[in-house]
Parts: sequence; C-alpha cells; structure tokens
Amino acid sequence: MTGTPSDGPAPAPTEAPPAPFTADDHRARMRRAARAAADAGLDGLLVAPGPDLVWLTGHRPPETERLTMLVLRDGRDPVLVVPTLEAPDAVGAPGGPALTLLDWTDGKDPYDAAVSVLGPRGRFGVSDNTWALHLLGLRRRLPGTEYVALTEALPMLRAVKDAAELERMAAAGAAADRAYEEIRQVAFAGRRETEVAADLADLLRQFGHSQVDFTIVASGPNGANPHHEAGDRVIGHGDMVVLDFGGLKDGYGSDTSRTVHVGEPAAEERAVHDLVRAAQEAGFRAVRPGAACQDVDRAARAVITEAGYGDRFIHRTGHGIGVTTHEPPYMIEGEERPLVPGMCFSVEPGVYLPGRFGVRIEDIVTVTQDGGRRLNNTPRELAVVE
Amino acid sequence: MTGTPSDGPAPAPTEAPPAPFTADDHRARMRRAARAAADAGLDGLLVAPGPDLVWLTGHRPPETERLTMLVLRDGRDPVLVVPTLEAPDAVGAPGGPALTLLDWTDGKDPYDAAVSVLGPRGRFGVSDNTWALHLLGLRRRLPGTEYVALTEALPMLRAVKDAAELERMAAAGAAADRAYEEIRQVAFAGRRETEVAADLADLLRQFGHSQVDFTIVASGPNGANPHHEAGDRVIGHGDMVVLDFGGLKDGYGSDTSRTVHVGEPAAEERAVHDLVRAAQEAGFRAVRPGAACQDVDRAARAVITEAGYGDRFIHRTGHGIGVTTHEPPYMIEGEERPLVPGMCFSVEPGVYLPGRFGVRIEDIVTVTQDGGRRLNNTPRELAVVE
Repeated sequence: MTGTPSDGPAPAPTEAPPAPFTADDHRARMRRAARAAADAGLDGLLVAPGPDLVWLTGHRPPETERLTMLVLRDGRDPVLVVPTLEAPDAVGAPGGPALTLLDWTDGKDPYDAAVSVLGPRGRFGVSDNTWALHLLGLRRRLPGTEYVALTEALPMLRAVKDAAELERMAAAGAAADRAYEEIRQVAFAGRRETEVAADLADLLRQFGHSQVDFTIVASGPNGANPHHEAGDRVIGHGDMVVLDFGGLKDGYGSDTSRTVHVGEPAAEERAVHDLVRAAQEAGFRAVRPGAACQDVDRAARAVITEAGYGDRFIHRTGHGIGVTTHEPPYMIEGEERPLVPGMCFSVEPGVYLPGRFGVRIEDIVTVTQDGGRRLNNTPRELAVVE
Repeated sequence: MTGTPSDGPAPAPTEAPPAPFTADDHRARMRRAARAAADAGLDGLLVAPGPDLVWLTGHRPPETERLTMLVLRDGRDPVLVVPTLEAPDAVGAPGGPALTLLDWTDGKDPYDAAVSVLGPRGRFGVSDNTWALHLLGLRRRLPGTEYVALTEALPMLRAVKDAAELERMAAAGAAADRAYEEIRQVAFAGRRETEVAADLADLLRQFGHSQVDFTIVASGPNGANPHHEAGDRVIGHGDMVVLDFGGLKDGYGSDTSRTVHVGEPAAEERAVHDLVRAAQEAGFRAVRPGAACQDVDRAARAVITEAGYGDRFIHRTGHGIGVTTHEPPYMIEGEERPLVPGMCFSVEPGVYLPGRFGVRIEDIVTVTQDGGRRLNNTPRELAVVE
C-alpha cells in the first residue's frame, strides 16, 4: 500500500550495538543497592524477575509460579534462589559470575531455600512486582519478617542513570524520533488505527527496538481516552490523531507522543494543540537539579488550568523511564523528592475533550547539571498529515 | 530460503473465530468464583490484572503500578477498582456490563477506593500475580485483613473447562500440530536455533495464534537444559533437537513438545527417545476421573526410573493450561487432588543428559468421563529431519 513503511526509504544502516554491561557493572549495581537498603534501615532486598532483576543481574527468567528471587544484603555476596532447571540461564546471564546460586527442584518447597538466606526476622524491601503468591509464601515460613515495596523504600534506586545508560536512553529516543518522522509520511485518512499502529511498530523495530510496548493511535473521539490503544476506527479527513509509542532498544526505553491532524485543523483544534505545546514547554523548563518532581507537574498544569482546561488534563505530567517504560520518579502533585542529574522521565501533558478529540505531547527529558535535555527532538508543532 | 515457512504451502483458509464470551458468561464465572470463595471460608476474592481478570471479565489492562482490582464477594455485585483513564476500556470489555466501576484519579490514594469495598477486616483470596506493591498497600490501610494466594485457596477455580473453552483448547492444539507438521519439513542442519525458532513462531501465527509465548529449539547439548530457549548455536547433522512451543489462540493456550533428530539417530539416542515416549504414554494412560494428579507423574516417572534414568528426569510431569500456559493442576508428587472431567494439562516427561542431549515429548491432555483425550495428535515417534 502506498506510503506504508514497506515502500518507504531503505532501512537505516545497522549501528553497532553498545558494549554489553559486564559482570563488574552488575556487581557494582548490586553492591550499591544493598548499601542503599542498609542506609534505609532495611535488612536486605528481595528482587523478583522483572525490571529490577534485569537491571541488577541481566537475568531474564519468565515470571511464573516458580520462585526466582535475588537476595541482596549489605556486606554479603548476592544470592539467587532459582529453580534448578533455570540455573544454567542464570549462570549464563551477564551478572551470573557475580551470583551465588541456591537452586531448588520441582517438588521441593522453594521457600526453604529463601529461608536459609533470610534468617528468622528482619525487614526487607521487595520488588513492586513480586507475586503475592511468593510474598505470602515467605511470610508463612517467616512470620517474624516484614516487607516494604521497593518503590516506597528506595524509590530512586534505578532513577539516576549513569553515562552508559544515558547513551542507551538517547539512542532509544533518537530511534523513536526517526519512527515519528517516517510515520508522518504515511497515509492516515481511510485507514484503520490498527493499520497505522502496525506501521509504527514496524518502524520502531526497523530503527532498532527489540520490543515494542505500545503504539497508541487514537483518532477523533478516541483521542479523548488517554489510554485508548488502537482500534478498528477508520481515520477520517479532519481527525486529530494522538500517537504515543515506545518500547525497548538495547534494554532501555523510548516513549514519545505527538498529535497530528489529517488535513488542515480548525481554529479550536489548533488552539488546544498550542495550549498543550505551551504546557509541555513549561514542564520542560521547570526541569533542573533540586526542583521537586511536583514542580514539573505544576508548571505544565498551570498553563492548562489558566486557559480553563484544568479539568480536562486527567493524568499526571510524567513518569520515569529506564529498563521499563513506567517507573519512578513520577511528575505528580505530592511528589516532593528532588530532581537529580541523570534522572530520565516523560513530560506529557494532555487535554481530553470527551466525544471530540484529545491532544498529548510527550518527550523524554533527562536532568542535566543546569536544567533538562530532551531526548526527543522532532517538531512539536501540529503536523498536518494526509 | 528453501523450506522456510514463507515458501511453504499457502496459509490455511481462515477459520471463523469462535463466538466471543458474553457478559452473561462472565457474570456466571464471577458468581461461581464468589460462591467458591465463600464455600472456602473467604470473605471475597481480589483479582489483579492478568489471567484471572481476563477469565472473569475479559478486561486486559496493563500490569502496572496503577491499581486495578476486581472485588468479588458472594451475594454482592462485582466491583472493579480502576484508574479513571482506564475506565473506558473496562466498560468496553466483554464482561464490562456486569461490573460496577469504582474509579480513582492520578494523585489520589487508590487504596481508599478498595478500602470502601472491603471493609476493615476479613480474609481474602488474591490472584497469585498480584503485585507486592498493591498487597502491601492494602495491608497498610487495612491491618485487620488477611490474604491467601488464589492457587492455594481455590487452586482449581479455572481448572475445569466448559464446552466452549474445550473447543478453544482443541483448536489451539490442532494449530500447534499443524505448526509441527510444517516445521519438520524445514532445514535444520546449518541453521541457528533462533532461525528455526522464528520459523516456528511464524507458523504458530499463520495457524491462528495471536500470541506466541515460547519457541524452544534446543539442539545437541542445549537439549539437556529443559528451559534453554533458542540461541546462536548452529544445528548440526547428528543433533537431537528438542522443540517446545506454544502460545494463545482465541485466548486459550497450546503447548507441545517433540524431539527430532537431524539425520539417522544412533542406537542410544533412539533408545532414550523410545523410553521417554513410553513414559509419556504411561502418563497419558494414568489420566482418568478420580485419579490423583500425582498418579500421572508417578506413572510417567516409574518408566524412566525403572530404566535407570530417574535422576535425569528433573522436572514435574505436567502443568495445567487454559487462559495461561502454566496454571493448576500440576502433575507432581504430593498433589493429591483428583482429576475431574474438563481439566486440561500437559503430560511431558523428559530425559536430560548433561553435555550431550535431551528428549522431551509433550501433549496437552483433557480429562474425559472415561479417561483422557489428547489435544495434540502428531506422531510421537522420533522424526528424522534434514
């Protein structure tokens, strides 16, 4: 079909992937995490399969009923409780050489293994996404232990990115920008949202994403639902279309939104878009070391509220991003923690007019020594598509 | 490339998808679950995003830090606690008309909403995969409440499939069988495991899978690791290759294993394969209403143990399958609950010889009134591939 990615320009020349993280990188992260836990008065951290475990060890086991749990305690070697049949994968993970494995076999009680590392009492931080099955299993065996969610105990554990991580974040953002530049060229009118969404996913993969997490294409009234994904609606001439897309490239996330218009916009559509753009700019300008997270939300929200659309901006202004596409810090009223250089998060105000249309504009921003730097750099003006 | 799926036979004619589950179907499931909870002495069920929620409501929100929780209590209407911005998707879900929504907005404490439905004390079943973040958040607000994992409280809640579910399970199994018949025709020798795995994924999608969960291609010594996925190893002449693949078709799971050999096998390879085949047959023949789950494990394991390979069969014999590919009932020593007509699970013994090769043979089996019925029906003899 004319204008779809398969007819588009040749794929980008293959970039060399970044050097993989080493066992020493992972050892340093685990040591830092264990130390931060001790400083926060915890006896250790219990890390479940998922983003925390990937960041700490590079190991990516399936999230299942079989217990895998990394135990980090300050001054001790990291121990990975692991099902015997997944032990080879754990050994082979980038952080594998830094781990002591404690494996358990089908039919045995996996909590026996964990109990031997934890001891009878203590207060432990646990990954937010630890399964209730496992948390309740541990508590049953160790009634003297207490648990606190990791994002409450150590919300900023993964928030500040180092140079190697920032390089990956910037590359993921640049890839998303290339996908947006291409998608502006495809035909919108007369095609289903799902078709444009498939194009977007193809483009993200073409530009190096290994995983596409979302490709929102919300046209006309669907745009008024911030979490509409993509449906069977056929996009028409005169529609506003919210595009919000991202995923992982070399293990780090992208997340970008632009709102485009099919044909020339009406005055009100342009005015609402200009308003959201001004709010996004105000949010971005509030980013600097030492500012509170909520200051970014307040700055963006004030612009929209002053224009009378405050009750139509129905979500927080932003969320952190790294090895996941949603993590602390959150740019939200009440979040008083300070911004620190190296943090990466979205600035994404929106206005949603039920039954009519929505507008959202989003960049990933990283905190620098003297302000903020956008990791998305495509135009934020209202783009007219066909 | 010769023999790859893209050159293969034309895609199957499109089958009519099964009629979707209705709001009444979901209402009946929710009522049954609430009643089962009451019968088990629970004050209700708290259901997190994931397979339980899909089965009960058809709603598939992302699993994130934002609290979504279905509260089921016997004799009351089901209540869905939901982020405001995901409310439209919940309303539009197949079971949406059967739900009372209680929404909360970014910045508000989501547990306030839950607290108003639960009351100050009680004992609740929670989905196994409920995030620790949410469980700990609830307990903090309601210290008088207690929680038990759903698979411990009501392990068989989703285990017995009704006629409409069995139809989907059989269709998923038939699609996996077609994928196996095709993959036997492709070239193995000289290609990487990942390439054959990509072929398998393409075939599963071609035959109607909407989601591919795993495509294990474990050649030569990699086959001795039951959870090896697929790597860069180039498959060679003389290799045994374990294939284990599945995903979801129309919402229900497939999961099949066959072990093939590149060229003619040696006598020992054939003997080990014959042994595993006999064990799989023995496990299958142990399936009948009223038998204990562990009887299936024992029957398969006895064959392997008697042949002297008992310590090389290092996992349970099977797991339930339905809207997920791993769920109760488990065919494992110690699981004494009885088999009931309509249950669906894998029978998948294996023998793993470290550094050399592995063999696994797996079918999905459903319990019938007078025995078991295989939902996979491709030959279990050792297939020779090229």
